[in-house]
Amino acid sequence: MRDRLARLRHRLGEAGLEALLVSTPENRRWLSGFTGSAGWLFITPHHALLATDFRYVEQAEQEAPAFRVVRIGAGLSWFPQLVRETGVRRVGCEAAHLPVATYQGLLDALREAGAEGVSLQPTQGLVEALRMGKDPQEVALIARAVAIAEEAMRRVAPTIREGETERAVAWRLEKEMRELGAEAVAFPIIVAAGPSAALPHHRPTDRPLRRGEPIVIDWGARYQGYCCDITRTFCLGAPSDTFRRVYGTVLTAQQQAMAAIRPGMPAGEADGVARRVIEEAGYGENFGHSLGHGIGLAVHEAPRLGPGSQTPLEEGMVFTVEPGVYLSGWGGVRIEDTVALEGGRVRPLTTLPKDPLLPG
Amino acid sequence: MRDRLARLRHRLGEAGLEALLVSTPENRRWLSGFTGSAGWLFITPHHALLATDFRYVEQAEQEAPAFRVVRIGAGLSWFPQLVRETGVRRVGCEAAHLPVATYQGLLDALREAGAEGVSLQPTQGLVEALRMGKDPQEVALIARAVAIAEEAMRRVAPTIREGETERAVAWRLEKEMRELGAEAVAFPIIVAAGPSAALPHHRPTDRPLRRGEPIVIDWGARYQGYCCDITRTFCLGAPSDTFRRVYGTVLTAQQQAMAAIRPGMPAGEADGVARRVIEEAGYGENFGHSLGHGIGLAVHEAPRLGPGSQTPLEEGMVFTVEPGVYLSGWGGVRIEDTVALEGGRVRPLTTLPKDPLLPG
Repeated sequence: MRDRLARLRHRLGEAGLEALLVSTPENRRWLSGFTGSAGWLFITPHHALLATDFRYVEQAEQEAPAFRVVRIGAGLSWFPQLVRETGVRRVGCEAAHLPVATYQGLLDALREAGAEGVSLQPTQGLVEALRMGKDPQEVALIARAVAIAEEAMRRVAPTIREGETERAVAWRLEKEMRELGAEAVAFPIIVAAGPSAALPHHRPTDRPLRRGEPIVIDWGARYQGYCCDITRTFCLGAPSDTFRRVYGTVLTAQQQAMAAIRPGMPAGEADGVARRVIEEAGYGENFGHSLGHGIGLAVHEAPRLGPGSQTPLEEGMVFTVEPGVYLSGWGGVRIEDTVALEGGRVRPLTTLPKDPLLPG
Repeated sequence: MRDRLARLRHRLGEAGLEALLVSTPENRRWLSGFTGSAGWLFITPHHALLATDFRYVEQAEQEAPAFRVVRIGAGLSWFPQLVRETGVRRVGCEAAHLPVATYQGLLDALREAGAEGVSLQPTQGLVEALRMGKDPQEVALIARAVAIAEEAMRRVAPTIREGETERAVAWRLEKEMRELGAEAVAFPIIVAAGPSAALPHHRPTDRPLRRGEPIVIDWGARYQGYCCDITRTFCLGAPSDTFRRVYGTVLTAQQQAMAAIRPGMPAGEADGVARRVIEEAGYGENFGHSLGHGIGLAVHEAPRLGPGSQTPLEEGMVFTVEPGVYLSGWGGVRIEDTVALEGGRVRPLTTLPKDPLLPG
């Protein structure tokens, strides 16, 4: 944590700021260790303060030993007090998360306290940029989340039967993950069968599974705050020619992208490798999302592996590789792994096979 | 839904606005029926538009028949297009939810499109004020969530045993709710035993339950989007004198507040009824939160039943009544019901008994 603070302070200096007011929950946790759902970090070159209300003071003191915990009540008058106490004038806030009303409230509190000459500047991505590179302990936590999610699927996949509902399968998978030690699902599980598999964000319904149709299952566990994200596409019984063709295309696209990724490659270029495979197979119009996204304390975080993304992929990053092809009315295929960039190559944290056939 | 739109349009007129850009998920769902996780409503006196990306277009068309669905891509250029198409100039946005960066992005998009003379004004509470009054269908959905949560507790309470962990009890309760038809827990379940019961927002740990100590369980189900929120405090074996005294105080405070509430009473006055009972018993310093909060699509919504709240409680509102007393080092007692204000009186939707003794 102290190393993370030092790196953030260095970036604050580069950005011409004397302090950062951190309100994004994942940034708050990553910098301090505090897991409560309400609180602010106020970080200057010489201070690390955590402001939270009576519900969380005790917990914050236990979880965030590098921070001094400040108990606050309703209202925002604590903000000019911390500003005065620390003597800073150029304060950044996190514009991608902070609501307009709270920002206005913070400005009003400064004015009411007579803190002329103090500015509160919207910033973006300062902590998120640091969070992109995972340390070995973070990679291990994500790998643990993967192990839980995979073991749950190993138990559930052989039990999936024709006629049962998407919802029933999703719940069995969630239950297994929780009983294997996940603190939560990383996101609502997607089980999308037949035409619904053409909708990348379908929510499970009471529609029964049928033989021969594509069944997209997208799931992940959360372990000590860290997420994983996996997709497999299955088929009960003999897959159609369309299924085989689409599945083969998506699998090739994923394999080629994973083989091509090197440190320093712009994230958009990784997307391009997979996209070319899909375009050449004639499905260019049917891959409507990005190849992947960073993952960690948030299930979607930087970098974005999508068209135009210039962010270089670097050693230590953890992200998903998840090409998909979606055919309206028929269904879709997506195959997704959570991977780490280590030793100059992609190391898949996911180990589940990619055989689409289910016994049921 | 059309009635809700008509009422919002009336309020927009009163607020001097020609349009509202809705980004708060619960407001979006309440006004349109759309349950997806990304999208914007743009509502003018003559238009009801729902802007969402390719993932949700089909779902939005099914769920929100009163709205015209507009497919949007990345970026915010759709916003000045909708403004131009509808011819409005004074547009409100939802400041309590909209992040600063998105607000800036919307302003930039207006400027880049040359939409001079169009203003985007931060507003607060326009839709939330309408959502406070529930219609009979909404009350029925909350009552259904209550029925699920209560049946789950009826199954779990008799099985709670000395030596098992807070976490194990929380998970059994969650599992029962989900298998009884809850789409999710309304919030992370709290099981807080012994000294942890002094922390109103404790998260379940692996600490084993012991005889004689207070066990606070705060749980709720979500059903078709609607939440309930219930707390009971239990004891395994003979409760101590302290337990009896604190429990009796909290129960009396709750009963007196529920008996006193009438339509038109300021919400802060309801809080005061319970607070006086607790103060007179000598625990005034140990009731550190508000008496309750509105509940519906959000687990915490308007009105706030706390000191100073001037919002009048009105027929049709659904809220919690949840006094608590917390003694650091010993534990705490909280008793919470979800209630509706109907026929001039509080009607508890919760029916579980308030007997603190567990068989285990």
